[in-house]
Amino acid sequence: MKRYFLSLLLLPLSLFAAQPAQPNIILFLVDDMGLMDTSAPMLADDSGNIVSQPLNAWYRTPNMERLAKKGIRFSQFYAHTVCSPTRASIMTGQNSARHRTTQFISPRGKNTGDHGPEDWNWAGLTSDDVTLPGLLRDFGYRTIHVGKAHFAPPDHVGEDPSNLGFDVNVGGASMGQPGSYWGQDGYGNLNPKRATWAVPGMEKYYGTDTFLTEALTIEAKAEIDRSLEIDAPFYLYMSHYSVHSPFQSDPRFEDNYAGSDKDERSRAYATLIEGMDKSLGDLMDHLEARGIAENTLIIFMGDNGSDAPFGGADNIASSAPFRGKKASRWEGGIRVPFIAAWGDPQSGHPVQQQLLIKVGGVQSQLGICYDVFPTLLAVATAKPPMDHVVDGQNLKPLLQGDRDPERKEVFLSHFPHEHRNNYFTSYRAGNWKLIYHYLPESGRDADRYELYNLRKDPSESDNQAAVQPERLARMTRVMTRQLDAMEALYPVVDGVEQRPVVPSS
Amino acid sequence: MKRYFLSLLLLPLSLFAAQPAQPNIILFLVDDMGLMDTSAPMLADDSGNIVSQPLNAWYRTPNMERLAKKGIRFSQFYAHTVCSPTRASIMTGQNSARHRTTQFISPRGKNTGDHGPEDWNWAGLTSDDVTLPGLLRDFGYRTIHVGKAHFAPPDHVGEDPSNLGFDVNVGGASMGQPGSYWGQDGYGNLNPKRATWAVPGMEKYYGTDTFLTEALTIEAKAEIDRSLEIDAPFYLYMSHYSVHSPFQSDPRFEDNYAGSDKDERSRAYATLIEGMDKSLGDLMDHLEARGIAENTLIIFMGDNGSDAPFGGADNIASSAPFRGKKASRWEGGIRVPFIAAWGDPQSGHPVQQQLLIKVGGVQSQLGICYDVFPTLLAVATAKPPMDHVVDGQNLKPLLQGDRDPERKEVFLSHFPHEHRNNYFTSYRAGNWKLIYHYLPESGRDADRYELYNLRKDPSESDNQAAVQPERLARMTRVMTRQLDAMEALYPVVDGVEQRPVVPSS
Repeated sequence: MKRYFLSLLLLPLSLFAAQPAQPNIILFLVDDMGLMDTSAPMLADDSGNIVSQPLNAWYRTPNMERLAKKGIRFSQFYAHTVCSPTRASIMTGQNSARHRTTQFISPRGKNTGDHGPEDWNWAGLTSDDVTLPGLLRDFGYRTIHVGKAHFAPPDHVGEDPSNLGFDVNVGGASMGQPGSYWGQDGYGNLNPKRATWAVPGMEKYYGTDTFLTEALTIEAKAEIDRSLEIDAPFYLYMSHYSVHSPFQSDPRFEDNYAGSDKDERSRAYATLIEGMDKSLGDLMDHLEARGIAENTLIIFMGDNGSDAPFGGADNIASSAPFRGKKASRWEGGIRVPFIAAWGDPQSGHPVQQQLLIKVGGVQSQLGICYDVFPTLLAVATAKPPMDHVVDGQNLKPLLQGDRDPERKEVFLSHFPHEHRNNYFTSYRAGNWKLIYHYLPESGRDADRYELYNLRKDPSESDNQAAVQPERLARMTRVMTRQLDAMEALYPVVDGVEQRPVVPSS
Repeated sequence: MKRYFLSLLLLPLSLFAAQPAQPNIILFLVDDMGLMDTSAPMLADDSGNIVSQPLNAWYRTPNMERLAKKGIRFSQFYAHTVCSPTRASIMTGQNSARHRTTQFISPRGKNTGDHGPEDWNWAGLTSDDVTLPGLLRDFGYRTIHVGKAHFAPPDHVGEDPSNLGFDVNVGGASMGQPGSYWGQDGYGNLNPKRATWAVPGMEKYYGTDTFLTEALTIEAKAEIDRSLEIDAPFYLYMSHYSVHSPFQSDPRFEDNYAGSDKDERSRAYATLIEGMDKSLGDLMDHLEARGIAENTLIIFMGDNGSDAPFGGADNIASSAPFRGKKASRWEGGIRVPFIAAWGDPQSGHPVQQQLLIKVGGVQSQLGICYDVFPTLLAVATAKPPMDHVVDGQNLKPLLQGDRDPERKEVFLSHFPHEHRNNYFTSYRAGNWKLIYHYLPESGRDADRYELYNLRKDPSESDNQAAVQPERLARMTRVMTRQLDAMEALYPVVDGVEQRPVVPSS
């Protein structure tokens, strides 16, 4: 009884005094950027030492290096194979098998393909959905959308981020790529050949030589300033169109790649990367100039594997030493760069006590795109509704540089569709990765099962399915159970759902 | 002057006396049947001896064997990689690069894909187009469509074959596959799960155990009889839905495959093949019973490579020893069975004088699906309008068993789309085959060029592109010239047409 009164007396105190301030948050999301498309190496050896790869010497991203020094980089961070699934996962905290936007949203129709499930969530998010910005807004944030949205098709309510929990929308609409990066083209609005995906708004830059990445950065800085004026913590979803195609060269950086023997498109791609990196640096500078670097959390990540214009979807090329690229089943299709840091980690601002990010750290435990949802809600002291299922786990221990013993070491990437690879689920558990093909005879692969030991065979070249029958059967069984638990949709042949077939072991 | 009068006098005589009678024609077209899906071997060695392959021992097609004995089989007959292009080529006599239905027509939209040309002919044929049945009808034929049409999408005029030159339509509509082969399902009309592609009409068979292939055959025989009643030569386009998926077992033939260790779908596929073959035999029997075998020409052919339910699109499997299957760039994707014969070649009917088909022959010179158009027009003494461009060549010399020295030994298969293989043109010239990839970095193949010597390397395993630079450059140049001459459409990236790049040699 005494304890009861005491706790009642303490309650208001804890709400007003012990309640920590809310940090500003920038989620800096880059489109189609693979984990090797940077001069800040993302891989580490077993001792946690950073390991450079050849492509790290080609790209120039000094501001990613600067950010990584302030905080922690992840050497094994996963996203879905294409953009819409990852973006919906960030918004909802759910695996795409659960939210069912398993394929990219197309302006041209349902994009179901020959054997895709008819009921996949091709219409994307609606104003009825629980979303990360909606929750942050409920808990006091000013929520700012800048750049690519691609949450729903044209003429659907979700095409406008303002209907999905964002207070402000700059340049976001249904499309997944810009008509043009060039101000001279009005970002597509002034050039009929590039009008299909013309970026909305930002008329003041039309006809100027302001590259789209730069224009979005200028607007983002202005929105930060507006948030400061009204004294609200902000959530800035800085979602760059770069480095998605069209691979238009950014003249500001061309000289840096002029002497190379790489082809024109690869050089143009490198300028897109460097322009994106400049945006990151400009935002960091702006936080410092405004004195809010100390209480602003920055998360940098990619949305799917690299789509750099060289190498095929099954080759060891644009994500070397990993195989594949965006939309493939290989590691190169789903591994993305990830860095988290406080803008000024040395300041010791009280808000940082909630999340002590390891400075200069490298984390090798698995992180996943939908972990961002519970992580950011926690740091913002916000909560999802009780009935909203969250697949993600709070990254807090990992960001502190610790190993989280309670964390499940699994990632399930479900793609019951056609694109560069057809109708598969990949399931990583520990060091092993199973790739299950629903329609082997309809695709390019005759085998139903692939099984790789990623530790010994990171380039996925040595299929162990035939020599590890028990492991294969067990992993297929667990994969199926997890898919069913999420009520995943499967490919359909002649009206018949193609559930995974567990092999006899 | 004297000669002038003489020729004037002779003119009416030549029109009425020398004008030969018109034969009946059956074009027996099988959907998705590869050149190995038969017990009648299609390959021959250099001496013209028939060579069996392992798969020939698995399938049972006694009526194809019977037909081949009456006439000639082709060991190198080509079609396009998917069905709509081939069907439009048969109707128009044109390469798909010219008629621009380069991809299969989809009920779900334009099916353009990420980088397909927006202006490809996704709407298919219209009533304004010159078509083979339309011309034959103009020249006195009764034209009968039975089975799969798939000439245009739903709600387009061309979805009904009656609008494309056919007097009669049995079972044809916009869709490329049947909802069901089972009468119990009403061919899809009685089963909601199979209703999407329900076959129109034929209500009298609903609820019976009449397999679709059988029902179409019964109807085709009745249409032959109706033509005889009105004493008109007929053109029967006997276009079976079989052996396209769904791979439903035909109970009439199940016992023939019951002892096999092949899987259920492969066994079901074999029953579809045998049911299709029974239809061929039933029609041949019917011609004999009606006494018209002697003046009826039968052409048997497939519309694209095999889609048998085993092996992937890049494997040596369902068209072994050739690589690949339907929709792939390999020989297995474009080589199809072809047999031509008079129903009764021994009768010496005068109409056969126009086209003396070699009995029991094997032709190893290249034939192509669009050659059927000029060949059938010629034998029907019909002509296309002067302004209609025809890419096909009359097969007459080849059907006689001769080598045609004037025939071009080339075939160009243009696929600026995505399916099982992405964005390619393959170009066969003599023994060599070039495969050009428009977007190597967007697909599964990192190389832009593949070059094979089909004579030495029929399974396309040894890419000679790097060691034959001059041949590669020359073939790429000629391929591009031919594509441009047909005003082919190319893939598009960011509004920019991707014309072939000729390598430096």
